[in-house]
Amino acid sequence: MRVLSRLFNNLVNCSGIILKSSENQLKQNTRHLSINFQYFNKNSNNWGSKKSHRSIKIQQLLLQEMADPKTEEILAPLRAVVKEQGDLVRKLKDEGAPEIDVKKAIAELKIRKKILEDKELSLAPQVSSFDRAKMEDLLKRRFFYDQSFAIYGGITGQYDFGPMGTMLKANMLNAWRQFFVLEEQMLEVDCSILTPEPVLKASGHVDRFADLMVKDVKTGECFRLDHLIKAHLEKQASDKKATKEFKDECADIAVKLDGMNKAEMAAILVKYNMKSPITQNDLTEPIEFNLMFGTSIGPTGLVKGFLRPETAQGIFVNFKRLLEFNQGKLPFAAAQIGNSFRNEISPRSGLIRVREFTMAEIEHFCDPNQKDHPKFVDIADYEMTLYSACNQMDGKSASRIKIGDAVKTGLVANETLGYFMARIAMFMIKVGIVPSRLRFRQHMSQEMAHYACDCWDAECLTSYGWIECVGCADRSAYDLTQHTNATGVRLAAEKKLPEPKTVEVTEAVPNKQIIGKAFKKDAKEITELLAKMSLDGLKKMDEELTANNTYNLSNFTLNREMVSIKTSSKTVHVEEIIPSVIEPSFGIGRIMYSLLEHRFQMRDGDEQRCFFSLPPIVAPLKCSVLPLSNNAEFAPFIKKISTALTKVDVSHKVDDSSGSIGRRYARTDEIAIPYGITIDFDTIKEPYSVTLRERDSMNQVRIPLEEVADVVRNLAFSKTEWSEVEAKYPKFEQQESKTA
Amino acid sequence: MRVLSRLFNNLVNCSGIILKSSENQLKQNTRHLSINFQYFNKNSNNWGSKKSHRSIKIQQLLLQEMADPKTEEILAPLRAVVKEQGDLVRKLKDEGAPEIDVKKAIAELKIRKKILEDKELSLAPQVSSFDRAKMEDLLKRRFFYDQSFAIYGGITGQYDFGPMGTMLKANMLNAWRQFFVLEEQMLEVDCSILTPEPVLKASGHVDRFADLMVKDVKTGECFRLDHLIKAHLEKQASDKKATKEFKDECADIAVKLDGMNKAEMAAILVKYNMKSPITQNDLTEPIEFNLMFGTSIGPTGLVKGFLRPETAQGIFVNFKRLLEFNQGKLPFAAAQIGNSFRNEISPRSGLIRVREFTMAEIEHFCDPNQKDHPKFVDIADYEMTLYSACNQMDGKSASRIKIGDAVKTGLVANETLGYFMARIAMFMIKVGIVPSRLRFRQHMSQEMAHYACDCWDAECLTSYGWIECVGCADRSAYDLTQHTNATGVRLAAEKKLPEPKTVEVTEAVPNKQIIGKAFKKDAKEITELLAKMSLDGLKKMDEELTANNTYNLSNFTLNREMVSIKTSSKTVHVEEIIPSVIEPSFGIGRIMYSLLEHRFQMRDGDEQRCFFSLPPIVAPLKCSVLPLSNNAEFAPFIKKISTALTKVDVSHKVDDSSGSIGRRYARTDEIAIPYGITIDFDTIKEPYSVTLRERDSMNQVRIPLEEVADVVRNLAFSKTEWSEVEAKYPKFEQQESKTA
Repeated sequence: MRVLSRLFNNLVNCSGIILKSSENQLKQNTRHLSINFQYFNKNSNNWGSKKSHRSIKIQQLLLQEMADPKTEEILAPLRAVVKEQGDLVRKLKDEGAPEIDVKKAIAELKIRKKILEDKELSLAPQVSSFDRAKMEDLLKRRFFYDQSFAIYGGITGQYDFGPMGTMLKANMLNAWRQFFVLEEQMLEVDCSILTPEPVLKASGHVDRFADLMVKDVKTGECFRLDHLIKAHLEKQASDKKATKEFKDECADIAVKLDGMNKAEMAAILVKYNMKSPITQNDLTEPIEFNLMFGTSIGPTGLVKGFLRPETAQGIFVNFKRLLEFNQGKLPFAAAQIGNSFRNEISPRSGLIRVREFTMAEIEHFCDPNQKDHPKFVDIADYEMTLYSACNQMDGKSASRIKIGDAVKTGLVANETLGYFMARIAMFMIKVGIVPSRLRFRQHMSQEMAHYACDCWDAECLTSYGWIECVGCADRSAYDLTQHTNATGVRLAAEKKLPEPKTVEVTEAVPNKQIIGKAFKKDAKEITELLAKMSLDGLKKMDEELTANNTYNLSNFTLNREMVSIKTSSKTVHVEEIIPSVIEPSFGIGRIMYSLLEHRFQMRDGDEQRCFFSLPPIVAPLKCSVLPLSNNAEFAPFIKKISTALTKVDVSHKVDDSSGSIGRRYARTDEIAIPYGITIDFDTIKEPYSVTLRERDSMNQVRIPLEEVADVVRNLAFSKTEWSEVEAKYPKFEQQESKTA
Repeated sequence: MRVLSRLFNNLVNCSGIILKSSENQLKQNTRHLSINFQYFNKNSNNWGSKKSHRSIKIQQLLLQEMADPKTEEILAPLRAVVKEQGDLVRKLKDEGAPEIDVKKAIAELKIRKKILEDKELSLAPQVSSFDRAKMEDLLKRRFFYDQSFAIYGGITGQYDFGPMGTMLKANMLNAWRQFFVLEEQMLEVDCSILTPEPVLKASGHVDRFADLMVKDVKTGECFRLDHLIKAHLEKQASDKKATKEFKDECADIAVKLDGMNKAEMAAILVKYNMKSPITQNDLTEPIEFNLMFGTSIGPTGLVKGFLRPETAQGIFVNFKRLLEFNQGKLPFAAAQIGNSFRNEISPRSGLIRVREFTMAEIEHFCDPNQKDHPKFVDIADYEMTLYSACNQMDGKSASRIKIGDAVKTGLVANETLGYFMARIAMFMIKVGIVPSRLRFRQHMSQEMAHYACDCWDAECLTSYGWIECVGCADRSAYDLTQHTNATGVRLAAEKKLPEPKTVEVTEAVPNKQIIGKAFKKDAKEITELLAKMSLDGLKKMDEELTANNTYNLSNFTLNREMVSIKTSSKTVHVEEIIPSVIEPSFGIGRIMYSLLEHRFQMRDGDEQRCFFSLPPIVAPLKCSVLPLSNNAEFAPFIKKISTALTKVDVSHKVDDSSGSIGRRYARTDEIAIPYGITIDFDTIKEPYSVTLRERDSMNQVRIPLEEVADVVRNLAFSKTEWSEVEAKYPKFEQQESKTA
């Protein structure tokens, strides 16, 4: 059964490319057909094992290559058909065509775009041959991360980070905190994971954060409905006996599927008599499956709650406290690092699609009419790879552009959004993402949430294709407005007017004495009703009272004597505004995965010697300490060096196990340790010295013992470059055996 | 209704002291009667508001005072009654008395102990008057932390940390990682929160991590059963009309309550006709309420899971991978920082009893016969306050003792446990816990889990009494054994024998030819069955075959020809052992709360000027930058200093708001900023200089501008003492206005 399901899955995902999360308004990701839900299946091992397609070519879209005439000749017709469809979408929208037609046109546009992108990638020069299975084997073997609860059979979509993965993650989060929170003086918060239902009702997650699925009536196995339909029709259409007519029908449904509602999909299910692809059993009616994990808070079982699907809401519900902490002033940014949870129907692709994941989110609150940024000038010349919505619709490629120019031309909506995009790119590159495999893709207007003004995803190119790692959106005033409406607590800021403003105020002035006499205990209610009246209401009342000397206010009849209308001038100094929110949202696991792929290397000519060339800032450990042999005279030197390294906060690992020095170097390379100190027979002679080796080049220098800790510290914290160290100290020439 | 419930609650908890978590085998805490379950009750505000008892005396048990003859005179009879009961418990145990009698005796012992401890505290010299409401108001006002989802009415037992709380927490966790993980080269992991049921079934949490409760049949309100019974009987017994007989009966039940099972408690409920204390409605039968939050993993709804109630299990299920990472060698320690969840029936007491909390746990795996520690010698002379089980039973006090002596005399079970206890104490003091308010209390034998050898809680004295902040237990091989039994995966290590050992091996030798001929395809099964036989089984078979020439093995009848028994010698080099686990388990929120209480201060003579004297290592921000006024000439200096501080990684806050300098100092004191740089009119004259102020003493010095960043860095990272800075630079004499 499992084999069958695998086959079927391969069929569904023959592209091998993970679709990205842009379609859903709630940052919800496109999910794949569920079949492999694996649980308590002992000895199962759904990642990192020997796979048939060990080697995957990584093509790299180097932008300068794009103009290659031969390549462009092949791509030209594909570009043309994308543009044709893009123009159609624009035309339909301009004409106000029916929604279903627009949706159909967009779905077709996406298909054409995908064909173009695949072709582009396949024609790009191959920069390296990447062996995913080899990398995953290394990640498992040295316990960077692995499946959770494996001794109990494991759960898909859940991973435990081992010592190396945990330190990599901790270093990355510390770098993030340093780069964003401390450098920009953001207000970091740490909010609850368990969230009561009304909060997520207001945010839209209870109603809209869902996928349609169907279940096998006998086994209970679940399938994502749209993928099931697509796979079923593709299979039928590929049948030799299928008529041209039937094929067209299937293609038409596939195109429309994205825009169909529950009833339409249910009808298709019935029409084509679809069964479980695994057991051929009947299927249930479509069920809306919310992707949040539900639970009950407290002992009564009556208080429904969810595990948060994003950290952002914790910031929004604390807006008032944060504004107050910032002494009432805009703009300010709040940030949060923490875990979120999504009950994916069928998680897969290692760390990319999981049920439990760490996010780092920033919510920058600013005046909606003032989205400039004081530090934008510092980064305006920063060049980035931008893949605009326009280029996507025109069948063009991404392009390199200075962020200052992108904002100037209106491609990027405002300075603040542009500032964050540049800072995101700088951070990604700082932690080790390869710049040529990083791009920012703009959401096309139909992909964006209705409240968003502009949205760009930082995407990394991996063996799964381009995957979204960071979203950067201008969410306008949506979230604060939703929570204001749900709670009645105004989540707004006061903005001092440039100069005081005089406004005309029209109000009803009740004659309290007469009203009191006439209505007794109801007088108060009448006064309150009068105070609440709108300007139009007041005008109407005034007219009626003047004309008829009578006006019915709710259940009460008033006359001219009881109320008069007064218009006066008032001076106001502030206006209330609901701030706009610019939101950079980082998927830490996805960045880590991309980083590991980008930095996975093989030594030339020896594919058994793999390593990760992680930058020191994120490397799990900064230094190794290796005695050449287990000679007793080395021991005091090991201790001395270890103590010195601890004193200057350099994390390190002593490896005094047996095994040749070359073999131990290889082991430390595998866990990405950038520097290695070796204690050899020259170390124990005066003047004491050690060798220091750099991981990527494998070059070594000889350094006096008392200087080595500081040198490594400066290297590890990026205060010195390796080239400077090489220039200063004598090269240590002893050849490192490659096959040791 | 809410008022009633508060009154009732006060009645239940008249002691005002939180009981500690020692009773439960699963680190589960004693919980209080649930009444105040608060939800969507807008404007409710259950902490930090004006309380009637604003000022709480903090008595401090300075051990040298204990010998005060007058105090001892008063305490002597109380000590005697504790000892009397302690001796009774010992006697009953020695005699093997019925369990219920032992339980009753223990419950009485605890009551007597509590009376003694309360008296001790009340007689101790009062060191300070602590105003909890004042502190909580400050924590809310400056948003260290506050109730989660307050704009939606809030949820009890859930807190959001604001900017200051988050930075305090992050600094504390970084200090923890540095002090434990890096300095001891532990293997840190980061495991899943969502945990499938079988894992927690094996650990014992599914069956035993529960409290008994009853519900109001009409309103559904929940009450913890033991507390309900106790409160009901106390109320009845305090009635003027209550007979002596009835009072004794009530007292007897109260004493036995701790050891009662569900049926016994249910009978009492019926006998005394207990109703809801709030509505007088009927109550349901007792219900076992598991304290874990349940959910479903995956779309089928069939895979039951829980939010982990502790992080430890994630380490145990990864034991094999971690052992392998450590190259198969013992001992090693793994560590984890992360959130855990407990669905408390009625959370309260601020950060002390919450539903969602951060833990930092260490599991040190070692040879059960080798619990010495190589670094014990370094800390053997460290003096600690230990409150032994023996002293607790004898009515004696805690005492100061060197940890080396405590291990030597057997008071602390082994070196490894002692080593961690000392390291825990050092860490607590390093982050700012006041040493005289820290003690280690040993679990009495009946408090300990049946598998534990020894267990000590690090307790901090707060206005809630002594609260457990860190547990430190020797859990023996319990957890690894449980998971081994549940999964069949042997979680064990191989230990090299000091010298190879020769063992006698007895085995069945099948005559494969004859068996093959006789049983055909079943031959293989027979061979396997023979291989699995025990020594006893083999002996029995041998006897029967010799006697009758026939033996029935499962469904097969064998004869003498088919099988012989052979005994031979084998040399083995390793033996398999299941490691023991020493577990220090830190409750980060509780340590933070204790720390805030210990470090909450008022300026002499001005109780409006409160501040937290947090050590720089954990202070949310290390430095403030304050221009004396908004003079434009100051601006470039602000920027220069801020840049210099950022460069040396000193987190800081510029406060250029209006308000006198004294008022701004007071604001920075409130958020515990230890150092303040002020830019005044001397700053802008050459040679440029600034003043530097220390928070606790309010002393100031004048420092050259270009030196100040490095000086603050060295102070913030504990490389320099303030006294050294005062000695080196001229004192700045301008008096700080206290009431500014």
